Amino acid sequence: MDIKKRVLAARKLLEANGLGCFLLSSREDIFYYSGYKASEGNFLIIDKKQKPSLFVSPLENDAEKIKGVDLVYLTSGDRLIKELKGKLVGFDESNLKSWTFLNLHRRHIRLKKSTKLIKLPREVKTEEEIENIKAAIKISRKILDRLKFYNKTEIEVANTIEAGFKINNSEAAFDTIVSNGSSSIHHLPENRSIKKTEPTIIDFGAKYNWYCRDITRSFPGSQKKWKLVWENVKNIQEQIIDNVKPGIKMEDLQNLYKKLMGKNRYKIYHSFGHGLGLEVHEQITGELKEGMIITVEPGVYLKHFGGIRIEDDVLVRKGKAFVLTEKI
Amino acid sequence: MDIKKRVLAARKLLEANGLGCFLLSSREDIFYYSGYKASEGNFLIIDKKQKPSLFVSPLENDAEKIKGVDLVYLTSGDRLIKELKGKLVGFDESNLKSWTFLNLHRRHIRLKKSTKLIKLPREVKTEEEIENIKAAIKISRKILDRLKFYNKTEIEVANTIEAGFKINNSEAAFDTIVSNGSSSIHHLPENRSIKKTEPTIIDFGAKYNWYCRDITRSFPGSQKKWKLVWENVKNIQEQIIDNVKPGIKMEDLQNLYKKLMGKNRYKIYHSFGHGLGLEVHEQITGELKEGMIITVEPGVYLKHFGGIRIEDDVLVRKGKAFVLTEKI
Repeated sequence: MDIKKRVLAARKLLEANGLGCFLLSSREDIFYYSGYKASEGNFLIIDKKQKPSLFVSPLENDAEKIKGVDLVYLTSGDRLIKELKGKLVGFDESNLKSWTFLNLHRRHIRLKKSTKLIKLPREVKTEEEIENIKAAIKISRKILDRLKFYNKTEIEVANTIEAGFKINNSEAAFDTIVSNGSSSIHHLPENRSIKKTEPTIIDFGAKYNWYCRDITRSFPGSQKKWKLVWENVKNIQEQIIDNVKPGIKMEDLQNLYKKLMGKNRYKIYHSFGHGLGLEVHEQITGELKEGMIITVEPGVYLKHFGGIRIEDDVLVRKGKAFVLTEKI
Repeated sequence: MDIKKRVLAARKLLEANGLGCFLLSSREDIFYYSGYKASEGNFLIIDKKQKPSLFVSPLENDAEKIKGVDLVYLTSGDRLIKELKGKLVGFDESNLKSWTFLNLHRRHIRLKKSTKLIKLPREVKTEEEIENIKAAIKISRKILDRLKFYNKTEIEVANTIEAGFKINNSEAAFDTIVSNGSSSIHHLPENRSIKKTEPTIIDFGAKYNWYCRDITRSFPGSQKKWKLVWENVKNIQEQIIDNVKPGIKMEDLQNLYKKLMGKNRYKIYHSFGHGLGLEVHEQITGELKEGMIITVEPGVYLKHFGGIRIEDDVLVRKGKAFVLTEKI
């Protein structure tokens, strides 16, 4: 991992925004900027000159192996205060717990909301990051190829998928959705048998070496009506993917999604897609750039009857969209 | 689940502490007080009279099945503000993100740190909760009985355990620790083979129906030295467990732990144990009471050589300690 380059990018952002340092608190950000597979409650401070300081619990002795950081065992908050004192601190308001915020505030630390800046360098992926996401996709393919779901319960199928992740040295990036005849978009798998007479949505994501992929496959089942919906959703997805290229904005793609759904008189329940990387939902600001990865996931739902959602992971490369999940 | 009783307990705490309502934000608290298997970003407001209000994303349509709450789809923060306005709001500072805290503050919501109060009713477990934890323990027994770990890598063994959780309709309560010849307490499993010449720690926890158990087994391996350490740790654990009873405090047990470790000239690296329930680490305030569940986990580590930790889950019942994990 090119940690040095990442720290350098963060420092440029500090300069450009008049900040003294960043206080990182999310596990993913700490991993990105230090290489340490962080736990909840860790912190990483990146300032303009010194080595980044990594704060971990005294139980996390593995952190001693991490190079390029000053390791501090968090026994009290004093050392943290000492390093932040007198600087304008860019913090991650989307993650930092109010307990910590209030403690820093009480100790007169000057804090500035900086989530957007902190996540900015993560938007464009390096080759190594793309390889990790590809590995996660490969695992998913293996699992889906062997998956039998009709006449099994939703819970059984979700468990089979997630056990498959573990056996293949990865984990679930989010709670697996297995949904038969339900119009709930983030449906929680239930203890009921999957019938071919209703449409089935399987939305699952492996996380490999901390990198996520997110994919949805839908099976219309035996009803003609749902087969037609599947065709339409696939068609809408292809038209959006055709428009994924450098220079276009997420809002533009969302507007296109609205237009295509409107043509079919389908109601919009969620956005067309989102950024993807260390987290399942990642920030994408401004125009799409080479090396960004987004999902494209149109979905059509009929209240109380079911739905069809088709989701693929798309890499912006060589001026166009490269579908990473095509063969699944 | 006796949700009504729990809400009633929360209301008594509101009265006794001069609060207008609680704003719950952790997934576990929302589940405890509403029965809804909450997602990150959900909220539950419990006030003195009205039905609790459950705030979820518009994607979580399954929440419509939850009885006894007013369901609100979070599209903007306005409805949340409206319900909190004019009341003194007890919030969970250990969980609430600073982003939300700052937004509420900006809208002149009066906030009071209340983590301790919110988690108080969760300290004593009902029969139903104990049954869930027992189910999680049963799954662990099944997995450990079949586990072979010598000459496999730490990562392989951790993955086998976690796949086992999924196959048995449960999940990992925390990242499984498999540690051979390492003195790191929260060791991250590595890609190296487990040797019988070094001691091995396996610290793993199944989560069943959202309830966790947490257990550590250590295998001294072929060295006499470590076999002796194992005996000593087991002995220390038994002496602590003998003292677990209603009326004793966690601090008293910690002092006993210090005394017993001191007698053997062992250095203390972590506390003797912690509360257990919906979370792996739960608050226990004041004296132990009937129905509380704690872990007892003495550990001895020799830097760079390895360690022995033995952890069991203990229920306070009928005036004494009942070891839930005895047969594992």
